[in-house]
Amino acid sequence: MKLAIFGIGLIGGSVAKDLRSSDFAGEILGVGRSQKNCDLALQLGLVDKIVSKEEAVKNADLIILTVPVNYLVEELIYILDHIQLHQVVTDMGSTKGIIIDAIKDHPNRKQYVSSHPMAGTENSGPSAAISNLFRDKVCIICDKEKSNEDAVSLVEKMYGMLGMRIKYMDAHQHDMHAAYISHISHISSFVLAATVLEKEKDEEAILEMAGGGFESTVRLAKSSPEMWAPIFQQNKNYLLEVMDTYIEKMYHFRNLINKNKNEELKNFMMEANEIRKILK
Amino acid sequence: MKLAIFGIGLIGGSVAKDLRSSDFAGEILGVGRSQKNCDLALQLGLVDKIVSKEEAVKNADLIILTVPVNYLVEELIYILDHIQLHQVVTDMGSTKGIIIDAIKDHPNRKQYVSSHPMAGTENSGPSAAISNLFRDKVCIICDKEKSNEDAVSLVEKMYGMLGMRIKYMDAHQHDMHAAYISHISHISSFVLAATVLEKEKDEEAILEMAGGGFESTVRLAKSSPEMWAPIFQQNKNYLLEVMDTYIEKMYHFRNLINKNKNEELKNFMMEANEIRKILK
Repeated sequence: MKLAIFGIGLIGGSVAKDLRSSDFAGEILGVGRSQKNCDLALQLGLVDKIVSKEEAVKNADLIILTVPVNYLVEELIYILDHIQLHQVVTDMGSTKGIIIDAIKDHPNRKQYVSSHPMAGTENSGPSAAISNLFRDKVCIICDKEKSNEDAVSLVEKMYGMLGMRIKYMDAHQHDMHAAYISHISHISSFVLAATVLEKEKDEEAILEMAGGGFESTVRLAKSSPEMWAPIFQQNKNYLLEVMDTYIEKMYHFRNLINKNKNEELKNFMMEANEIRKILK
Repeated sequence: MKLAIFGIGLIGGSVAKDLRSSDFAGEILGVGRSQKNCDLALQLGLVDKIVSKEEAVKNADLIILTVPVNYLVEELIYILDHIQLHQVVTDMGSTKGIIIDAIKDHPNRKQYVSSHPMAGTENSGPSAAISNLFRDKVCIICDKEKSNEDAVSLVEKMYGMLGMRIKYMDAHQHDMHAAYISHISHISSFVLAATVLEKEKDEEAILEMAGGGFESTVRLAKSSPEMWAPIFQQNKNYLLEVMDTYIEKMYHFRNLINKNKNEELKNFMMEANEIRKILK
């Protein structure tokens, strides 16, 4: 099977690594906007060839889009416009509703499978690609019934090769859950980094104190703004809701400390501790 | 050398594990408020004997206090009141100013060394004790000049056995840095858990989406309220300052998303990315 991956960064590159070591992919074609990243992907052996968009769409059996979400609609429409009946396209973006809505009336809609593998690191670019990034994680396939069964099977098979467990969701439900769980985590981490960098002028102290939980909590603040700004923009409505709840709770926590309400403070934390029951 | 550890939970138990496997400690005595935890510490082999406070102070060469910070002052005063000239006491609490101020005029002040090993996990109790918890982390010793040189040397030797690098700080500076870096990290994580638990009623979705960064960012929200409420209370002034900055920045981030200010949003995140330069 011939694959084309649009966007050979952390996600695309990691997909390439694992599918290359399985027998799923015969040849892997790479498409990228940045010449530098294309050269690097080739040099790292992530892809066999860097090709143009046109060439990729002409030759690949399966096309995987891992570009930032603000480029997804445009790329997907181009691909659906040029795709043959035997070809399948999927995307791995972190927002799904806007993309699904944009192509809902496209005559080749059924050859597209909407998916989101819930995996990543705070690093980006081809050199951030790692093996087994996806293993034992969850992949969400959205609005499965709007795709051909064969197309869904092929994409499921690919995620199976990556070691993922597959769950199904409505696209807008996906966006809500993603905002309420994953995207707010990124935002709280970005805000933590910005706060610490503003208040703490002693870099040595940051390094010395990092072991006290800061290092892991701030990890996501290292993530790529080019990737995340469009996600936040596209998922704005759900995000504003959850951010308002977050701000309200932070303000409440502040007031409990300020007013020495020790028992209420403990109760707040005991309720937060309930997350243990879900994430064991 | 005979050790006494007051509080055999995550920290005390982990200290006991490592010091037992070195030749630093001949016998380890445990003192605890909870009978259940004392039994467990004994059963896990963390300590050789559970003894009373009186017995511990009578027999130990080095006394280590790892109780929650709201019990520290009381325990420390009791120990300093009864300690002999050859004995040394240290504490491992996360706040230092209040404790140091409380015993500043005690005649045996010089036998006390104030320290804070910057290490931990989100778990608590004797069964949370692990080997090598402290290895390659930083330990901060406060107001070193107010302790006997011999006492400081002994405590430094113990932290050396645990594999820690030692840094020195003024107690109030320590509290400021701890608030600005470690304590705000815990608070942002507690608030994240509380927010997600309120907004997201689908526990299955939390589990499925956890791989997208939530799991690591929310880890500290599993921490013990009994331990952390008193820390936040004792470090209130610095904490209110840094929480106000955090709330302001979160609100700013929210408004950038709300007003579609994509370039400013990216700039905010690029500034947060600077944390990479400090935490490589």
